[in-house]
Amino acid sequence: MRFLTFITITILSCATAVAQELFSPNKALKLSFSLSAEGTPVYSLFYKGKEVVKPSRLGIELFSSNEVKFGAEITKKEGVNTSLYHNFEVVNTQNTTVDETWQPVWGESQNIRNHYNELLVSLKQKDTHREMNLRFRLFDDGLGFRYEFPEQKQMPYFVIKEERTEFAMTGDHQAWWIPGDYDTQEYDYQQSRLSEIRAINQKRRQANLAQTGFSDTGVQTALMLKTDDGLYINLHEAALVNYGAMHLNLNDKTFVFQSWITPDANGAKGYMQTPAQTPWRTVIVSDDARDILASDITLNLNEPCALADTSWIHPMKYVGVWWEMITGMKEWSYTYDVPSVHIGKTDYTTLKPHGKHGATTENVKKYIDFAAENGFDGVLVEGWNIGWEDWFGHSKDLVFDFQTPYPDFDIEAIHQYAKSKGIKMIMHHETSSSIRNYERFMDKAYQLMNQYEYPAVKSGYVGNIIPRGENHYSQWVNNHYLYAIKKAADYRIMVNAHEAVRPTGLCRTYPNLIGNESARGGEYQAFGGSKPNHVCVLPFTRLIGGPMDYTPGVFEMDISKNNPNNHSHCNATLANQLALYVTMSSPLQMASDLPENYRRFPDAFQFIKEVALDWSESHYLEAEPGAYITVARKAKGTRNWFIGNTASKDFTSKIHFSFLEPKTTYVATIYADAKDANYKTNPQAYTIQKILVTNKSKLTLHSVAGGGYAISLFPLTDKAQAKGLKKR
Amino acid sequence: MRFLTFITITILSCATAVAQELFSPNKALKLSFSLSAEGTPVYSLFYKGKEVVKPSRLGIELFSSNEVKFGAEITKKEGVNTSLYHNFEVVNTQNTTVDETWQPVWGESQNIRNHYNELLVSLKQKDTHREMNLRFRLFDDGLGFRYEFPEQKQMPYFVIKEERTEFAMTGDHQAWWIPGDYDTQEYDYQQSRLSEIRAINQKRRQANLAQTGFSDTGVQTALMLKTDDGLYINLHEAALVNYGAMHLNLNDKTFVFQSWITPDANGAKGYMQTPAQTPWRTVIVSDDARDILASDITLNLNEPCALADTSWIHPMKYVGVWWEMITGMKEWSYTYDVPSVHIGKTDYTTLKPHGKHGATTENVKKYIDFAAENGFDGVLVEGWNIGWEDWFGHSKDLVFDFQTPYPDFDIEAIHQYAKSKGIKMIMHHETSSSIRNYERFMDKAYQLMNQYEYPAVKSGYVGNIIPRGENHYSQWVNNHYLYAIKKAADYRIMVNAHEAVRPTGLCRTYPNLIGNESARGGEYQAFGGSKPNHVCVLPFTRLIGGPMDYTPGVFEMDISKNNPNNHSHCNATLANQLALYVTMSSPLQMASDLPENYRRFPDAFQFIKEVALDWSESHYLEAEPGAYITVARKAKGTRNWFIGNTASKDFTSKIHFSFLEPKTTYVATIYADAKDANYKTNPQAYTIQKILVTNKSKLTLHSVAGGGYAISLFPLTDKAQAKGLKKR
Repeated sequence: MRFLTFITITILSCATAVAQELFSPNKALKLSFSLSAEGTPVYSLFYKGKEVVKPSRLGIELFSSNEVKFGAEITKKEGVNTSLYHNFEVVNTQNTTVDETWQPVWGESQNIRNHYNELLVSLKQKDTHREMNLRFRLFDDGLGFRYEFPEQKQMPYFVIKEERTEFAMTGDHQAWWIPGDYDTQEYDYQQSRLSEIRAINQKRRQANLAQTGFSDTGVQTALMLKTDDGLYINLHEAALVNYGAMHLNLNDKTFVFQSWITPDANGAKGYMQTPAQTPWRTVIVSDDARDILASDITLNLNEPCALADTSWIHPMKYVGVWWEMITGMKEWSYTYDVPSVHIGKTDYTTLKPHGKHGATTENVKKYIDFAAENGFDGVLVEGWNIGWEDWFGHSKDLVFDFQTPYPDFDIEAIHQYAKSKGIKMIMHHETSSSIRNYERFMDKAYQLMNQYEYPAVKSGYVGNIIPRGENHYSQWVNNHYLYAIKKAADYRIMVNAHEAVRPTGLCRTYPNLIGNESARGGEYQAFGGSKPNHVCVLPFTRLIGGPMDYTPGVFEMDISKNNPNNHSHCNATLANQLALYVTMSSPLQMASDLPENYRRFPDAFQFIKEVALDWSESHYLEAEPGAYITVARKAKGTRNWFIGNTASKDFTSKIHFSFLEPKTTYVATIYADAKDANYKTNPQAYTIQKILVTNKSKLTLHSVAGGGYAISLFPLTDKAQAKGLKKR
Repeated sequence: MRFLTFITITILSCATAVAQELFSPNKALKLSFSLSAEGTPVYSLFYKGKEVVKPSRLGIELFSSNEVKFGAEITKKEGVNTSLYHNFEVVNTQNTTVDETWQPVWGESQNIRNHYNELLVSLKQKDTHREMNLRFRLFDDGLGFRYEFPEQKQMPYFVIKEERTEFAMTGDHQAWWIPGDYDTQEYDYQQSRLSEIRAINQKRRQANLAQTGFSDTGVQTALMLKTDDGLYINLHEAALVNYGAMHLNLNDKTFVFQSWITPDANGAKGYMQTPAQTPWRTVIVSDDARDILASDITLNLNEPCALADTSWIHPMKYVGVWWEMITGMKEWSYTYDVPSVHIGKTDYTTLKPHGKHGATTENVKKYIDFAAENGFDGVLVEGWNIGWEDWFGHSKDLVFDFQTPYPDFDIEAIHQYAKSKGIKMIMHHETSSSIRNYERFMDKAYQLMNQYEYPAVKSGYVGNIIPRGENHYSQWVNNHYLYAIKKAADYRIMVNAHEAVRPTGLCRTYPNLIGNESARGGEYQAFGGSKPNHVCVLPFTRLIGGPMDYTPGVFEMDISKNNPNNHSHCNATLANQLALYVTMSSPLQMASDLPENYRRFPDAFQFIKEVALDWSESHYLEAEPGAYITVARKAKGTRNWFIGNTASKDFTSKIHFSFLEPKTTYVATIYADAKDANYKTNPQAYTIQKILVTNKSKLTLHSVAGGGYAISLFPLTDKAQAKGLKKR
């Protein structure tokens, strides 16, 4: 339901070249808009009087086109104007105020307030009479704006050569960034000055052939910045629909970013049909880093839920036949017997299994048992379907059929067993980025899921895109990801897409998109490890667009304990891993480690069993990008709270429980780093302490580097519970 | 059914570098194979002792590749050997003889003899131990050979940079050719010396921006050649499956052609997984041009029918709501009311029709009536479905949904009306080359056809391919065409694909592929006209691969009589148009002109009504590429014969009816050019004459330039029929 509490529209019907000003509802933010002498749109942004974005140009550069008529020769058209970036005049401006509250199907808050002042500037290009509008929405915590192209005879179609949106920074800010790339987001974050990006990118590129950056100063969004006078700025986009993903390219002399859209095989960046619009470009800004995390701008700029019925969408906590493969103990594949697999021809029943296959009926049943014993919702199984012997690196078109199980995976028996235990199975569709192949099998694959009552699918897009030459984040491929989500909704299936384009709040519109990876996930802890700052950056970057299936919960940091051949180390303490369930909120949360590792630490595992997945309130208590995050969240439909803290370096957390219900005593169970905990040498040193707290309580806790803490808070219902517990 | 009458296998198990020789069953053809000093395979071909193909190298050039492993960094692999063209040794050779006869579902003969001697040369590359085989099949009328790549651990996958198959010609032959192009085959044929190709191509390219030739000496296959000493040579390919279409690039100093495969967006020419093979490369050769037309090599080199049940495949003679649009009298579209169409959003019922829409219920019913009155099988309707307002030239992804009729096309009423008249409707699916979009809707589109009992679909691939950067004849897009054919077979639907890759005999394996355009079709007679030689070249080039939906039967050559704004002229006499039904045999034949034009010439139209579509025998009586063709065919399941002759210049045809049954008198109805006929100034001047003939009869007939004649022959069953008829 949607409460529209207040709307004001003021139409200024006079054309004017005078600068327009727009203030946020609380007046903290000010947007200024004008046309340059050349008729180029220019905007700038101020926060509490400080310049955040210096005057920055807006516009689109088009491809020229030839006049093409069916049944005739093609002739070159004279004078095709490729500029949608100058020679404009303002024909109209319109001001609107919206203040409404809406309820997401799942998320960090039960109610989301959408409160902004809007300025719509209607532009007309003087020579071509082409119309382009700029819509600015100024919230208390930032700006969203987009280009809109009304339906018009003079421009029914156009092709984008480049979007020329500038974000002119005021100086050489600190940045938390990953390099621009059309095909992967799975980078470790860098923290550096803007002026240092070029050198770091050049050095890294020499080391890894896979990284195909388009520019030495190209970076991905969401990009987190901090100015020397303490402003936090986040640049991203919202509602990426029918468009290529936006990268930013830095002029490291002027500190001006310009949009750099992911191209297709021809280098074209968007095929547009009017009416059309770009995604929203967002600038979240505050002098308090917590506001960046709390911002709902990205969701608010997306369209309301498009699904009539969402009753089938449920958050899920799950385990999976997965960490065994990620760590190298087991394999996705079944046999070494064939040089390559021919889907539809290779007869697996005649092949000798290599004995390392993870997705066996027997092994899956163990996970089902474990999930049922511990109150989980689901079990993911990877490697269940034929084709894994040669799925990667061969640009193989017919790589999987998404419906034929390996001989040792009895899909019917597993279905019955899971059902008898109250466990839902999570399907896995690795596409190997063979897009057409996946679409060809999609209906049958989803039908198979319906048949065996799998409510959710984890899809994967590892490797180079087929059709070759296309890029993971181009308009055409982005359209595929959304096609898969919409078609899944037709089958009442939830989607958790890995290696797809990073999210931009589309889960508001399609809440069956319950997760994405689209960043360097937990698996890298078994691929050489991630830096301790990683999980303190992700909430400021990747998570701005939506939840991440990060797969936390590693209890055994020494991966060689699982697989002697894997010498990777998970750079985190056990308490840090618990905290991630709260700091990296997601309606889909995995406990990624092996059941036997959880069984070694049943007291700590208790937190994973209890932690909620869906929230009615979230309070960001402490935050600094790359350094620390502390957040308290109230479990939806309950009176219980959960708190998480992660820290990249030694950190003393001081929290006040003022967010709790008044006059209520809570039993707080605190899972914290032990004094001698060390993410490298002593990661499993944790303490568990129970205390009583109220909304007057304060608490100081210490997190080590790569550490953190987690707290569960349950209202005291029986005084006997309080026995022996200290009050704070 | 397949009769395997004789097979001999001789295995030479010794490795040898000595040249191998292979003779055709009748010894007229000799193939020589050897390895060069560098270990490069070399073949040459002789016909009756004359060199046809000089020593020509064979091999494949590969792309280098990096070692890629999932979950690891990519490292450059040292020493990746990109040669599959040298350093080979012969490890085995094997000789086989096959002599079998098989029956096609439809075609030019009821029984096809497949008689060849085969040489299989097994090669191993000395340094890499990679295996590659060459399989040569020598028929009495030509050579087929292909590369085969056995399944092998040392080469499970490879990527083709170029196939290096040479066809070294012995001199500066005459050639009938069209320029190499990755996206269109709809060219007028050129006749020139090989040495003249470059200049002609350069000149043409300047005149037309749409033609994107890759080389000034690139030509398409099937390529027809004639040597100065009277040998006819045809170069083409058979069984183009999972590979890019082959062009030929000429070295016009040495007259050596080299294969030039259609690339993808990355320039790669084939992604191969062993076991694999290339299509067959064919060299049809004779000193009698009629043998080129009669050759069954292309079909014989394809796999037997893959469909278990073919009872639903039937030849069809049809009319259509089509020529009205081609000539510009009517339009495919419905309205001018919108700048562009949004499929699924645009509400046509609210739009003003422009009144020129061809596919109205009323108009379709007229064609159904006409078809029923004249014994036709079907009616094609183009422009029945929404989206035609802006389907072309905009690189529009969601361009059609293949299922929503325009408001004035009542699909249910038309279905019922057609059914009541015994007429089958032919569906039309223009894809605008938006491949993914078509595949997304394909099941629903075919289901709609089943629902309304459409037995056949004409599909179109006009415009640039989406995904952008792909080419019409690349491996990936060729795979789509075959996907569409196979899926159609699942729905018992016959396919007639226009603008798809030119055929290579795949109709043997998938006989529901009842037609292709894939060349400059009859429609160009309304787009400025085609040259009179065109239909005398096509049987030697385009038709080598399979039947063409040429859409003959134009009776009104002055297109301005249909549409005063169209000043095109059909460069043919009316008798020539009749002859095409026999000279350009196809199981799918259209009578393309307007019913009112047929009604003006009922006596001539009688031939179109009577002519058969499927044959038990074909006898090529006279032939010269680009000049004239005379063929007699016996209608399958009957005792009736039909003869056609077309001539590009004045031609005196002398035929002997020796192919007729002995001791039988036939009533021959001869539709010939009148003496004063002229394809430009007097095209409708024809004579119709009835005579009696037997297998002893001879006949001399005169065809004017752009003219021809057609003859129907029915056994005399009632002596009364013979009254007044002369005997020959």
